[in-house]
Amino acid sequence: MRNIKLIITYDGTEFHGWQRQPGLRTVQQVLEDAIEQLTTVRPNANATSRTDAGVHAQGQVINFFTDAVYPTHVFLKALNATLPHDLRVLSAEEMTESFHSTLDAQRKRYCYKIDNAAIASPFLRRYAWHVYHPLDINAMNRAGQALIGTHDFRSFETNWPNRASSVRTISRLETTREGDAVSIEVEADGFLYNMVRAIAGTLVVVGTRRKPESFVAAALKAQSRSEAGPTAPPQGLTLIRIWFE
Amino acid sequence: MRNIKLIITYDGTEFHGWQRQPGLRTVQQVLEDAIEQLTTVRPNANATSRTDAGVHAQGQVINFFTDAVYPTHVFLKALNATLPHDLRVLSAEEMTESFHSTLDAQRKRYCYKIDNAAIASPFLRRYAWHVYHPLDINAMNRAGQALIGTHDFRSFETNWPNRASSVRTISRLETTREGDAVSIEVEADGFLYNMVRAIAGTLVVVGTRRKPESFVAAALKAQSRSEAGPTAPPQGLTLIRIWFE
Repeated sequence: MRNIKLIITYDGTEFHGWQRQPGLRTVQQVLEDAIEQLTTVRPNANATSRTDAGVHAQGQVINFFTDAVYPTHVFLKALNATLPHDLRVLSAEEMTESFHSTLDAQRKRYCYKIDNAAIASPFLRRYAWHVYHPLDINAMNRAGQALIGTHDFRSFETNWPNRASSVRTISRLETTREGDAVSIEVEADGFLYNMVRAIAGTLVVVGTRRKPESFVAAALKAQSRSEAGPTAPPQGLTLIRIWFE
Repeated sequence: MRNIKLIITYDGTEFHGWQRQPGLRTVQQVLEDAIEQLTTVRPNANATSRTDAGVHAQGQVINFFTDAVYPTHVFLKALNATLPHDLRVLSAEEMTESFHSTLDAQRKRYCYKIDNAAIASPFLRRYAWHVYHPLDINAMNRAGQALIGTHDFRSFETNWPNRASSVRTISRLETTREGDAVSIEVEADGFLYNMVRAIAGTLVVVGTRRKPESFVAAALKAQSRSEAGPTAPPQGLTLIRIWFE
Protein backbone atom coordinates (compact mmCIF):
# COMPACT_ATOMS: atom_id res chain seq x y z
CA MET A 1 0.00 0.00 0.00
CA ARG A 2 1.22 3.54 -0.76
CA ASN A 3 1.12 6.18 1.97
CA ILE A 4 0.05 9.55 0.55
CA LYS A 5 0.47 12.85 2.41
CA LEU A 6 -1.72 15.78 1.40
CA ILE A 7 -1.51 19.39 2.52
CA ILE A 8 -5.03 20.79 2.41
CA THR A 9 -6.66 24.20 3.00
CA TYR A 10 -10.29 24.91 3.82
CA ASP A 11 -12.71 27.64 4.74
CA GLY A 12 -14.30 26.01 7.81
CA THR A 13 -17.48 28.09 7.78
CA GLU A 14 -19.63 25.53 6.02
CA PHE A 15 -18.03 22.42 7.53
CA HIS A 16 -18.94 20.78 10.83
CA GLY A 17 -15.25 20.46 11.62
CA TRP A 18 -12.78 17.81 10.49
CA GLN A 19 -14.14 14.61 11.94
CA ARG A 20 -16.72 12.34 10.29
CA GLN A 21 -20.16 12.66 11.86
CA PRO A 22 -23.23 10.89 10.48
CA GLY A 23 -25.35 13.18 8.31
CA LEU A 24 -23.08 16.22 8.66
CA ARG A 25 -20.80 17.86 6.12
CA THR A 26 -17.30 17.50 7.56
CA VAL A 27 -13.88 17.93 5.95
CA GLN A 28 -12.99 14.26 6.50
CA GLN A 29 -16.25 13.10 4.92
CA VAL A 30 -15.92 15.34 1.85
CA LEU A 31 -12.24 14.50 1.35
CA GLU A 32 -12.74 10.75 1.78
CA ASP A 33 -15.66 10.89 -0.67
CA ALA A 34 -13.37 12.51 -3.26
CA ILE A 35 -10.57 9.98 -2.69
CA GLU A 36 -13.06 7.10 -2.92
CA GLN A 37 -14.42 8.48 -6.18
CA LEU A 38 -10.88 8.55 -7.60
CA THR A 39 -9.53 5.26 -6.24
CA THR A 40 -12.81 3.27 -5.87
CA VAL A 41 -11.81 2.36 -2.28
CA ARG A 42 -12.92 4.19 0.83
CA PRO A 43 -9.77 5.43 2.62
CA ASN A 44 -9.32 6.37 6.25
CA ALA A 45 -7.74 9.83 6.30
CA ASN A 46 -5.74 10.90 9.38
CA ALA A 47 -5.43 14.63 10.03
CA THR A 48 -2.79 16.29 12.20
CA SER A 49 -5.44 18.45 13.87
CA ARG A 50 -9.10 17.64 14.30
CA THR A 51 -10.33 21.19 13.77
CA ASP A 52 -13.74 22.14 15.18
CA ALA A 53 -16.75 23.48 13.30
CA GLY A 54 -16.04 26.94 11.89
CA VAL A 55 -12.25 26.64 12.28
CA HIS A 56 -10.17 27.15 9.13
CA ALA A 57 -6.94 25.66 7.78
CA GLN A 58 -4.27 27.03 5.50
CA GLY A 59 -2.00 24.02 5.93
CA GLN A 60 -3.69 20.99 7.47
CA VAL A 61 -1.79 17.75 6.84
CA ILE A 62 -3.46 14.41 6.26
CA ASN A 63 -2.30 10.96 5.16
CA PHE A 64 -4.06 7.90 3.80
CA PHE A 65 -3.15 4.52 2.35
CA THR A 66 -4.09 3.47 -1.15
CA ASP A 67 -3.44 0.84 -3.82
CA ALA A 68 -4.07 3.34 -6.59
CA VAL A 69 -1.12 3.76 -8.96
CA TYR A 70 -1.60 7.40 -9.98
CA PRO A 71 1.42 9.69 -9.71
CA THR A 72 1.01 12.24 -6.89
CA HIS A 73 0.46 15.16 -9.30
CA VAL A 74 -2.54 13.27 -10.67
CA PHE A 75 -3.96 12.88 -7.14
CA LEU A 76 -3.57 16.63 -6.70
CA LYS A 77 -5.32 17.57 -9.94
CA ALA A 78 -8.02 14.93 -9.82
CA LEU A 79 -8.97 15.66 -6.21
CA ASN A 80 -9.18 19.41 -6.84
CA ALA A 81 -11.36 18.75 -9.86
CA THR A 82 -13.84 16.87 -7.64
CA LEU A 83 -13.69 18.78 -4.34
CA PRO A 84 -15.94 21.75 -3.56
CA HIS A 85 -14.31 25.19 -3.72
CA ASP A 86 -14.10 25.63 0.05
CA LEU A 87 -11.63 22.72 0.26
CA ARG A 88 -8.43 22.49 -1.83
CA VAL A 89 -5.45 20.18 -1.94
CA LEU A 90 -2.22 22.22 -2.04
CA SER A 91 0.26 19.36 -2.42
CA ALA A 92 0.45 15.57 -2.60
CA GLU A 93 3.52 13.55 -1.73
CA GLU A 94 4.32 9.85 -1.31
CA MET A 95 5.78 9.01 2.11
CA THR A 96 7.35 5.95 3.70
CA GLU A 97 4.93 3.47 5.25
CA SER A 98 5.63 4.72 8.79
CA PHE A 99 4.57 8.35 8.23
CA HIS A 100 1.54 9.36 10.31
CA SER A 101 0.23 12.92 10.10
CA THR A 102 -1.10 12.93 13.67
CA LEU A 103 1.72 11.19 15.50
CA ASP A 104 4.71 12.62 13.61
CA ALA A 105 3.86 16.32 13.87
CA GLN A 106 6.59 18.18 15.77
CA ARG A 107 5.23 21.71 15.87
CA LYS A 108 2.11 23.58 14.71
CA ARG A 109 1.26 27.22 14.15
CA TYR A 110 -2.21 28.65 14.63
CA CYS A 111 -3.41 32.20 14.06
CA TYR A 112 -6.36 33.69 15.92
CA LYS A 113 -7.78 36.75 14.15
CA ILE A 114 -9.80 39.57 15.72
CA ASP A 115 -11.73 42.30 13.89
CA ASN A 116 -11.08 45.25 16.22
CA ALA A 117 -13.07 47.85 14.26
CA ALA A 118 -15.87 49.76 16.00
CA ILE A 119 -18.29 48.32 13.41
CA ALA A 120 -17.74 44.70 12.34
CA SER A 121 -16.57 44.23 8.75
CA PRO A 122 -18.91 42.05 6.65
CA PHE A 123 -15.78 40.64 5.00
CA LEU A 124 -14.29 39.37 8.27
CA ARG A 125 -17.41 37.91 9.89
CA ARG A 126 -16.53 34.37 8.73
CA TYR A 127 -12.83 34.71 9.58
CA ALA A 128 -12.50 36.79 12.75
CA TRP A 129 -13.99 37.48 16.19
CA HIS A 130 -15.40 40.99 16.40
CA VAL A 131 -14.17 42.82 19.52
CA TYR A 132 -15.21 46.48 19.29
CA HIS A 133 -13.39 47.64 22.43
CA PRO A 134 -9.90 48.81 21.31
CA LEU A 135 -7.24 46.22 22.15
CA ASP A 136 -3.91 47.19 23.70
CA ILE A 137 -1.67 44.75 21.87
CA ASN A 138 1.41 45.82 23.83
CA ALA A 139 -0.33 44.74 27.03
CA MET A 140 -1.33 41.45 25.35
CA ASN A 141 2.26 40.78 24.27
CA ARG A 142 3.70 41.54 27.70
CA ALA A 143 1.08 39.41 29.45
CA GLY A 144 1.51 36.54 26.97
CA GLN A 145 5.20 36.17 27.86
CA ALA A 146 4.10 34.11 30.87
CA LEU A 147 2.83 31.37 28.53
CA ILE A 148 6.00 30.95 26.47
CA GLY A 149 7.99 27.85 27.41
CA THR A 150 7.03 24.49 28.88
CA HIS A 151 4.03 24.60 31.24
CA ASP A 152 1.01 22.67 32.39
CA PHE A 153 -1.70 24.39 30.32
CA ARG A 154 -4.78 22.79 31.93
CA SER A 155 -6.14 26.30 32.68
CA PHE A 156 -6.49 26.70 28.91
CA GLU A 157 -8.05 23.31 28.15
CA THR A 158 -11.75 22.61 27.72
CA ASN A 159 -12.92 19.45 29.54
CA TRP A 160 -9.66 18.78 31.36
CA PRO A 161 -8.32 16.16 31.62
CA ASN A 162 -8.90 14.76 28.16
CA ARG A 163 -5.29 13.80 27.40
CA ALA A 164 -2.59 11.93 29.25
CA SER A 165 -0.71 15.14 29.98
CA SER A 166 -1.57 18.82 29.80
CA VAL A 167 2.08 19.89 29.61
CA ARG A 168 3.00 21.56 26.32
CA THR A 169 5.76 23.87 25.05
CA ILE A 170 4.83 27.17 23.41
CA SER A 171 7.77 28.43 21.35
CA ARG A 172 6.11 31.59 20.04
CA LEU A 173 3.16 33.77 21.06
CA GLU A 174 2.83 37.12 19.36
CA THR A 175 0.01 39.62 18.90
CA THR A 176 0.24 42.03 15.97
CA ARG A 177 -2.06 44.67 14.46
CA GLU A 178 -2.60 45.74 10.86
CA GLY A 179 -5.19 48.51 10.89
CA ASP A 180 -8.28 47.07 12.59
CA ALA A 181 -7.15 43.43 12.21
CA VAL A 182 -5.41 41.96 15.26
CA SER A 183 -3.69 38.57 14.94
CA ILE A 184 -2.49 36.29 17.71
CA GLU A 185 0.06 33.77 16.40
CA VAL A 186 0.89 30.73 18.52
CA GLU A 187 3.39 27.96 17.87
CA ALA A 188 3.71 24.91 20.09
CA ASP A 189 4.72 21.26 19.99
CA GLY A 190 1.07 20.37 20.53
CA PHE A 191 -2.20 21.91 21.65
CA LEU A 192 -4.84 20.87 24.17
CA TYR A 193 -8.54 20.98 23.24
CA ASN A 194 -9.57 24.62 22.61
CA MET A 195 -6.18 25.82 23.89
CA VAL A 196 -5.61 28.57 21.30
CA ARG A 197 -9.17 29.83 21.70
CA ALA A 198 -8.79 29.90 25.49
CA ILE A 199 -5.48 31.78 25.19
CA ALA A 200 -7.07 34.26 22.75
CA GLY A 201 -10.05 34.80 25.07
CA THR A 202 -7.70 35.35 28.01
CA LEU A 203 -5.43 37.78 26.16
CA VAL A 204 -8.49 39.79 25.05
CA VAL A 205 -9.53 40.20 28.70
CA VAL A 206 -6.14 41.87 29.27
CA GLY A 207 -6.19 43.76 25.95
CA THR A 208 -9.52 45.39 26.81
CA ARG A 209 -8.21 46.30 30.31
CA ARG A 210 -10.83 44.29 32.16
CA LYS A 211 -7.98 42.57 34.02
CA PRO A 212 -4.34 43.56 34.69
CA GLU A 213 -1.50 42.02 32.70
CA SER A 214 -0.72 39.68 35.61
CA PHE A 215 -4.04 37.91 34.95
CA VAL A 216 -2.47 35.62 32.35
CA ALA A 217 0.38 34.40 34.58
CA ALA A 218 -2.06 33.95 37.47
CA ALA A 219 -4.45 31.94 35.28
CA LEU A 220 -1.62 29.64 34.17
CA LYS A 221 -0.44 29.13 37.75
CA ALA A 222 -3.96 28.42 39.06
CA GLN A 223 -4.23 25.23 36.91
CA SER A 224 -7.98 25.76 36.73
CA ARG A 225 -9.98 26.56 33.60
CA SER A 226 -12.26 28.91 35.54
CA GLU A 227 -9.35 31.23 36.40
CA ALA A 228 -8.58 32.02 32.75
CA GLY A 229 -10.66 34.02 30.25
CA PRO A 230 -13.47 32.75 28.01
CA THR A 231 -13.01 30.48 24.98
CA ALA A 232 -12.94 32.76 21.92
CA PRO A 233 -15.39 31.81 19.11
CA PRO A 234 -14.23 29.33 16.44
CA GLN A 235 -14.36 31.46 13.30
CA GLY A 236 -11.25 33.48 14.29
CA LEU A 237 -9.04 30.39 14.36
CA THR A 238 -6.90 29.14 11.46
CA LEU A 239 -4.41 26.26 11.46
CA ILE A 240 -1.52 27.84 9.55
CA ARG A 241 1.28 25.31 9.29
CA ILE A 242 2.58 22.00 10.64
CA TRP A 243 6.21 20.97 10.89
CA PHE A 244 7.44 17.37 10.81
CA GLU A 245 10.86 15.98 11.68
CA MET B 1 -38.37 65.90 5.70
CA ARG B 2 -34.79 65.15 6.74
CA ASN B 3 -32.30 63.87 4.16
CA ILE B 4 -30.06 61.16 5.65
CA LYS B 5 -26.84 59.99 4.01
CA LEU B 6 -25.48 56.57 4.96
CA ILE B 7 -22.16 54.99 4.06
CA ILE B 8 -22.70 51.24 3.93
CA THR B 9 -20.52 48.16 3.38
CA TYR B 10 -21.62 44.71 2.28
CA ASP B 11 -20.40 41.29 1.28
CA GLY B 12 -22.31 40.91 -1.99
CA THR B 13 -22.09 37.12 -2.15
CA GLU B 14 -25.54 36.44 -0.74
CA PHE B 15 -27.29 39.48 -2.24
CA HIS B 16 -28.86 39.68 -5.70
CA GLY B 17 -27.24 43.08 -6.18
CA TRP B 18 -28.41 46.47 -4.95
CA GLN B 19 -31.71 46.97 -6.69
CA ARG B 20 -35.10 45.79 -5.36
CA GLN B 21 -36.41 42.75 -7.23
CA PRO B 22 -39.55 40.89 -6.21
CA GLY B 23 -38.83 37.81 -4.13
CA LEU B 24 -35.04 38.26 -4.12
CA ARG B 25 -32.72 39.28 -1.31
CA THR B 26 -31.18 42.56 -2.46
CA VAL B 27 -29.25 45.21 -0.53
CA GLN B 28 -31.92 47.86 -1.19
CA GLN B 29 -34.68 45.55 0.03
CA VAL B 30 -32.87 44.54 3.22
CA LEU B 31 -31.80 48.12 4.01
CA GLU B 32 -35.25 49.59 3.35
CA ASP B 33 -36.80 46.88 5.53
CA ALA B 34 -34.51 47.89 8.40
CA ILE B 35 -35.25 51.62 7.95
CA GLU B 36 -38.99 50.91 7.80
CA GLN B 37 -38.78 48.87 11.00
CA LEU B 38 -37.07 51.81 12.71
CA THR B 39 -39.13 54.70 11.32
CA THR B 40 -42.44 52.90 10.57
CA VAL B 41 -42.41 54.40 7.05
CA ARG B 42 -41.11 52.67 3.93
CA PRO B 43 -38.32 54.86 2.50
CA ASN B 44 -36.95 54.98 -1.02
CA ALA B 45 -33.19 54.58 -0.75
CA ASN B 46 -30.97 55.95 -3.57
CA ALA B 47 -27.55 54.37 -4.00
CA THR B 48 -24.61 55.93 -5.83
CA SER B 49 -23.90 52.66 -7.63
CA ARG B 50 -26.39 49.92 -8.42
CA THR B 51 -23.99 47.06 -7.83
CA ASP B 52 -24.73 43.70 -9.48
CA ALA B 53 -25.24 40.34 -7.81
CA GLY B 54 -22.02 39.14 -6.15
CA VAL B 55 -20.36 42.58 -6.24
CA HIS B 56 -19.16 43.96 -2.87
CA ALA B 57 -18.98 47.43 -1.33
CA GLN B 58 -16.66 48.93 1.25
CA GLY B 59 -18.10 52.43 0.87
CA GLN B 60 -21.41 52.55 -0.98
CA VAL B 61 -23.33 55.80 -0.34
CA ILE B 62 -27.11 56.00 -0.10
CA ASN B 63 -29.59 58.67 0.91
CA PHE B 64 -33.23 58.61 1.96
CA PHE B 65 -35.84 61.03 3.32
CA THR B 66 -37.53 60.55 6.67
CA ASP B 67 -39.70 62.32 9.23
CA ALA B 68 -38.10 60.36 12.07
CA VAL B 69 -36.50 62.60 14.71
CA TYR B 70 -33.67 60.28 15.85
CA PRO B 71 -30.17 61.76 15.98
CA THR B 72 -27.94 60.28 13.27
CA HIS B 73 -25.91 58.20 15.77
CA VAL B 74 -29.14 56.49 16.77
CA PHE B 75 -29.86 55.66 13.12
CA LEU B 76 -26.38 54.13 12.91
CA LYS B 77 -26.72 51.97 16.03
CA ALA B 78 -30.34 50.97 15.53
CA LEU B 79 -29.86 49.97 11.89
CA ASN B 80 -26.77 47.88 12.69
CA ALA B 81 -28.71 46.16 15.47
CA THR B 82 -31.36 45.09 12.93
CA LEU B 83 -29.35 44.44 9.76
CA PRO B 84 -27.83 41.03 8.93
CA HIS B 85 -24.06 40.73 9.43
CA ASP B 86 -23.24 40.87 5.73
CA LEU B 87 -24.51 44.46 5.59
CA ARG B 88 -23.29 47.22 7.94
CA VAL B 89 -23.83 50.97 8.18
CA LEU B 90 -20.48 52.72 8.69
CA SER B 91 -21.75 56.28 9.12
CA ALA B 92 -24.95 58.34 9.13
CA GLU B 93 -25.10 62.07 8.43
CA GLU B 94 -27.85 64.62 7.88
CA MET B 95 -27.54 66.46 4.57
CA THR B 96 -29.27 69.45 2.98
CA GLU B 97 -32.46 68.65 1.10
CA SER B 98 -30.74 68.84 -2.29
CA PHE B 99 -28.18 66.08 -1.66
CA HIS B 100 -28.62 63.07 -3.95
CA SER B 101 -26.21 60.14 -3.66
CA THR B 102 -26.53 59.16 -7.33
CA LEU B 103 -26.48 62.57 -8.98
CA ASP B 104 -23.93 64.33 -6.77
CA ALA B 105 -21.14 61.74 -6.91
CA GLN B 106 -18.00 63.26 -8.47
CA ARG B 107 -15.63 60.33 -8.48
CA LYS B 108 -15.64 56.63 -7.52
CA ARG B 109 -12.98 54.06 -6.85
CA TYR B 110 -13.42 50.37 -7.57
CA CYS B 111 -11.01 47.53 -6.92
CA TYR B 112 -11.01 44.34 -8.97
CA LYS B 113 -9.25 41.48 -7.18
CA ILE B 114 -7.66 38.40 -8.76
CA ASP B 115 -6.41 35.27 -6.99
CA ASN B 116 -3.34 34.47 -9.10
CA ALA B 117 -2.25 31.33 -7.20
CA ALA B 118 -1.85 28.05 -9.06
CA ILE B 119 -4.52 26.55 -6.77
CA ALA B 120 -7.47 28.79 -5.85
CA SER B 121 -7.62 29.85 -2.20
CA PRO B 122 -10.86 28.81 -0.42
CA PHE B 123 -10.65 32.15 1.42
CA LEU B 124 -10.73 34.24 -1.77
CA ARG B 125 -13.38 32.35 -3.72
CA ARG B 126 -16.10 34.83 -2.69
CA TYR B 127 -13.90 37.90 -3.19
CA ALA B 128 -11.66 37.31 -6.19
CA TRP B 129 -11.48 35.88 -9.70
CA HIS B 130 -9.14 32.89 -9.86
CA VAL B 131 -6.68 33.19 -12.77
CA TYR B 132 -4.04 30.46 -12.45
CA HIS B 133 -1.87 31.61 -15.35
CA PRO B 134 0.78 33.98 -13.86
CA LEU B 135 -0.07 37.62 -14.59
CA ASP B 136 2.55 40.08 -15.79
CA ILE B 137 1.38 43.16 -13.89
CA ASN B 138 4.02 45.38 -15.51
CA ALA B 139 2.51 44.58 -18.90
CA MET B 140 -0.98 45.27 -17.49
CA ASN B 141 0.13 48.65 -16.13
CA ARG B 142 1.80 49.69 -19.37
CA ALA B 143 -1.18 48.58 -21.47
CA GLY B 144 -3.67 50.25 -19.11
CA GLN B 145 -2.07 53.68 -19.68
CA ALA B 146 -4.13 53.92 -22.88
CA LEU B 147 -7.35 54.08 -20.82
CA ILE B 148 -6.32 56.92 -18.50
CA GLY B 149 -7.93 60.25 -19.41
CA THR B 150 -11.19 61.17 -21.14
CA HIS B 151 -12.35 58.65 -23.73
CA ASP B 152 -15.42 57.06 -25.26
CA PHE B 153 -15.46 53.75 -23.34
CA ARG B 154 -18.21 51.98 -25.31
CA SER B 155 -15.80 49.08 -25.99
CA PHE B 156 -15.96 48.38 -22.25
CA GLU B 157 -19.73 48.70 -21.80
CA THR B 158 -22.22 45.85 -21.76
CA ASN B 159 -25.36 46.53 -23.83
CA TRP B 160 -24.14 49.76 -25.39
CA PRO B 161 -25.73 52.27 -25.65
CA ASN B 162 -27.54 52.25 -22.33
CA ARG B 163 -26.67 55.81 -21.32
CA ALA B 164 -26.77 59.19 -22.99
CA SER B 165 -22.99 59.22 -23.41
CA SER B 166 -20.26 56.63 -23.10
CA VAL B 167 -17.55 59.25 -22.53
CA ARG B 168 -15.94 59.03 -19.09
CA THR B 169 -12.69 60.18 -17.46
CA ILE B 170 -10.44 57.64 -15.75
CA SER B 171 -8.07 59.44 -13.38
CA ARG B 172 -6.30 56.37 -12.06
CA LEU B 173 -5.76 52.78 -13.22
CA GLU B 174 -3.19 50.72 -11.40
CA THR B 175 -2.46 47.01 -11.05
CA THR B 176 -0.54 45.85 -7.99
CA ARG B 177 0.47 42.48 -6.57
CA GLU B 178 0.82 41.28 -2.98
CA GLY B 179 1.90 37.66 -3.09
CA ASP B 180 -0.70 35.81 -5.14
CA ALA B 181 -3.32 38.57 -4.86
CA VAL B 182 -3.46 40.97 -7.81
CA SER B 183 -5.57 44.13 -7.50
CA ILE B 184 -6.70 46.46 -10.27
CA GLU B 185 -7.74 49.85 -8.87
CA VAL B 186 -9.75 52.20 -11.06
CA GLU B 187 -10.96 55.73 -10.33
CA ALA B 188 -13.24 57.64 -12.65
CA ASP B 189 -15.91 60.34 -12.65
CA GLY B 190 -18.43 57.66 -13.56
CA PHE B 191 -18.61 54.13 -14.90
CA LEU B 192 -20.61 52.50 -17.68
CA TYR B 193 -22.42 49.21 -17.08
CA ASN B 194 -19.84 46.46 -16.37
CA MET B 195 -17.00 48.84 -17.28
CA VAL B 196 -14.59 47.82 -14.51
CA ARG B 197 -15.23 44.14 -15.15
CA ALA B 198 -14.64 44.62 -18.90
CA ILE B 199 -11.40 46.52 -18.20
CA ALA B 200 -10.27 43.78 -15.79
CA GLY B 201 -11.08 41.06 -18.33
CA THR B 202 -9.17 42.96 -21.03
CA LEU B 203 -6.10 43.61 -18.85
CA VAL B 204 -6.00 39.90 -17.93
CA VAL B 205 -5.82 38.99 -21.63
CA VAL B 206 -2.65 41.11 -21.81
CA GLY B 207 -1.32 39.96 -18.41
CA THR B 208 -1.49 36.31 -19.49
CA ARG B 209 0.25 37.17 -22.80
CA ARG B 210 -2.62 35.98 -24.97
CA LYS B 211 -2.53 39.43 -26.66
CA PRO B 212 0.19 42.10 -26.95
CA GLU B 213 0.09 45.22 -24.79
CA SER B 214 -1.28 47.23 -27.73
CA PHE B 215 -4.52 45.21 -27.48
CA VAL B 216 -5.95 47.59 -24.85
CA ALA B 217 -5.39 50.77 -26.88
CA ALA B 218 -6.74 49.04 -30.01
CA ALA B 219 -9.85 47.86 -28.14
CA LEU B 220 -10.54 51.41 -26.91
CA LYS B 221 -10.09 52.86 -30.37
CA ALA B 222 -12.32 50.25 -32.03
CA GLN B 223 -15.39 51.47 -30.09
CA SER B 224 -16.82 47.97 -30.20
CA ARG B 225 -17.40 45.69 -27.25
CA SER B 226 -16.33 42.65 -29.25
CA GLU B 227 -12.81 44.04 -29.74
CA ALA B 228 -12.07 44.12 -25.99
CA GLY B 229 -11.60 41.20 -23.58
CA PRO B 230 -14.29 39.29 -21.68
CA THR B 231 -16.28 40.66 -18.74
CA ALA B 232 -14.55 39.44 -15.57
CA PRO B 233 -16.83 37.64 -13.05
CA PRO B 234 -18.65 39.74 -10.41
CA GLN B 235 -17.14 38.40 -7.18
CA GLY B 236 -13.78 40.12 -7.80
CA LEU B 237 -15.35 43.59 -7.82
CA THR B 238 -15.62 45.91 -4.80
CA LEU B 239 -16.88 49.49 -4.73
CA ILE B 240 -14.26 51.10 -2.48
CA ARG B 241 -15.08 54.78 -2.12
CA ILE B 242 -17.15 57.63 -3.51
CA TRP B 243 -16.22 61.30 -3.49
CA PHE B 244 -18.74 64.17 -3.50
CA GLU B 245 -18.16 67.87 -4.12
